[in-house]
Amino acid sequence: MTDAYREWYRGRRVMITGGLGFIGSNIARALVDLEADVLLVDSLIPDYGGNLNNIEGIESRLRVNVADVRQQSTMNYLVRDREVIFNLAGQVSHIDSMRDPETDLEINCRGQLTLLEACRRHNAGAKVVFAGTRQVYGKPDRLPVDEGHLVRPTDINGINKAAGEHYHLVYNNVFGVRACSLRLTNVYGPRQLIRHNRQGFIGWFIRLAVEGKEIQVFGDGSQLRDFVYVDDVVDAFLRAGSTDAVNGDVFNVGGAEPISHRDLVEMLLKAAGGGTVRYVEWPPEKKAIDIGSFYSNSGKFQRTVGWSPRVPLKEGLLRTVEFYRENLPRYIGEPS
Amino acid sequence: MTDAYREWYRGRRVMITGGLGFIGSNIARALVDLEADVLLVDSLIPDYGGNLNNIEGIESRLRVNVADVRQQSTMNYLVRDREVIFNLAGQVSHIDSMRDPETDLEINCRGQLTLLEACRRHNAGAKVVFAGTRQVYGKPDRLPVDEGHLVRPTDINGINKAAGEHYHLVYNNVFGVRACSLRLTNVYGPRQLIRHNRQGFIGWFIRLAVEGKEIQVFGDGSQLRDFVYVDDVVDAFLRAGSTDAVNGDVFNVGGAEPISHRDLVEMLLKAAGGGTVRYVEWPPEKKAIDIGSFYSNSGKFQRTVGWSPRVPLKEGLLRTVEFYRENLPRYIGEPS
Repeated sequence: MTDAYREWYRGRRVMITGGLGFIGSNIARALVDLEADVLLVDSLIPDYGGNLNNIEGIESRLRVNVADVRQQSTMNYLVRDREVIFNLAGQVSHIDSMRDPETDLEINCRGQLTLLEACRRHNAGAKVVFAGTRQVYGKPDRLPVDEGHLVRPTDINGINKAAGEHYHLVYNNVFGVRACSLRLTNVYGPRQLIRHNRQGFIGWFIRLAVEGKEIQVFGDGSQLRDFVYVDDVVDAFLRAGSTDAVNGDVFNVGGAEPISHRDLVEMLLKAAGGGTVRYVEWPPEKKAIDIGSFYSNSGKFQRTVGWSPRVPLKEGLLRTVEFYRENLPRYIGEPS
Repeated sequence: MTDAYREWYRGRRVMITGGLGFIGSNIARALVDLEADVLLVDSLIPDYGGNLNNIEGIESRLRVNVADVRQQSTMNYLVRDREVIFNLAGQVSHIDSMRDPETDLEINCRGQLTLLEACRRHNAGAKVVFAGTRQVYGKPDRLPVDEGHLVRPTDINGINKAAGEHYHLVYNNVFGVRACSLRLTNVYGPRQLIRHNRQGFIGWFIRLAVEGKEIQVFGDGSQLRDFVYVDDVVDAFLRAGSTDAVNGDVFNVGGAEPISHRDLVEMLLKAAGGGTVRYVEWPPEKKAIDIGSFYSNSGKFQRTVGWSPRVPLKEGLLRTVEFYRENLPRYIGEPS
């Protein structure tokens, strides 16, 4: 009975952009179990997170279409019979966005416009759930951060993600595409990119712990963050995709409670049974865009769709460590 | 003594992007009088507002370089010796942005990144004053709107202008470019584009009044707006360009007090001594992105640099009507 929103996906025609990536592939796994008709769209750009290993074992139960969201005619074709689109394609590295702002713009702004124009012109009734990010808030004025907080990003990636999110709201309000955005906090779990350290620290820390290496924490590690396990994020997308109550709005999707970097690393090293930690000075270029403590209030999403995070951090870290221990070569070698 | 910030421009190497446009050319006129070294950069894209008639009589006292802000290598060259850059190049039509979002993105996002990258790589100490817009606020939660109000644009143009503004702040905070944004409200005055009605209603209304034609107001005309005369906006740019007190921040630059569309049109018809008004139903596609009443609080800018609007609306409208009466063919014919 509480799973009506999950049953709703049976036979439903769903498309996931960034579908071979971390969150996209985890949504795909849930959807094939619910017997949805699943189309994954992914550009498989090296270094971005798409990985065919992410759909190991479910390849025959879905379709994969390699394509770039910036390609208008391809998107026009792919969206046309899709009832729900989980829109997760993106360039997610803050660091890369500061080195090469134009590529970040092309993917996180222009690519979103391309997908939305495809819907506007060829499937105006589509339901689109966008993967937003808590990065759009920048350095918080108050904690926890709710959706009434100013959007004031501190890096190029955050700016472009904010624009991508706003496009969804405008297309909802003006062109009838039913769209919303989930502002995800720090997400972790199986199938996250851990091959390099430019997509956020949590995946990288997990890799170092699994490899028994040294984790470097900037400053004294007292900064707070909230973390959410990928299965809870999948549940958030499924809920948002199945209801019109979220259309035209933005929702924080965050962890149950904040934890300091210091305590997180301690918990992770325990889960991994190895690795060490060292506290080092902040590199100045990282300090310049650092936002201090951040954690979000997901009460609005909870009230609207009944979602709450269920997997405790300790449990999530254990599952994640176990996954990478079994699959490490597939996630640290060159992409296949 | 109060004009020290104006004297500061004597001999100063200034660049104005969008320099042949409405506000840009008015800044240029002030700067040549102050004996600054003025370089105007403008793409002269038809329909966008650049007009060589705007610099009539001052052509020999400045340089014009026709170029597009999206062109990286050109921008790299042009910025290198400039001390102050007034960055006004943009696509400013809300309507065009909804018809052709990608072009709006290219100019208002990518073009801004191009200019800022040029500064980062070739003139990191440059001072950049960006022409922001009150559109980034969208439909206001409260009035008057100050800078603490959420950024929640209702059209593509507003989204891209918000991104363009955020880039300036990030380049200020991270790359040492000294940048700020002035969020302009409804600006009016001589040299505004009045050739078509896709760049806001005020210029169009002024043209109709000067031509003795009928002005159509949507709804009952009770919506409030604030208007600021272009000379006051020029003064705002000159103040912002000459001080580091504004770096890394955004400031509303608005009119002294709000007025309803109804009263504005009445005042305008009186100033023009002709024309009529008719109240008509809202077209649905315009209603969808309408924001109701809006007026801004410019107190922060006033406190920071001492600016306040000086030209009363009645006086500004009279001056504007007089200008267009004398120059109408140059502003309603095909661009030269």
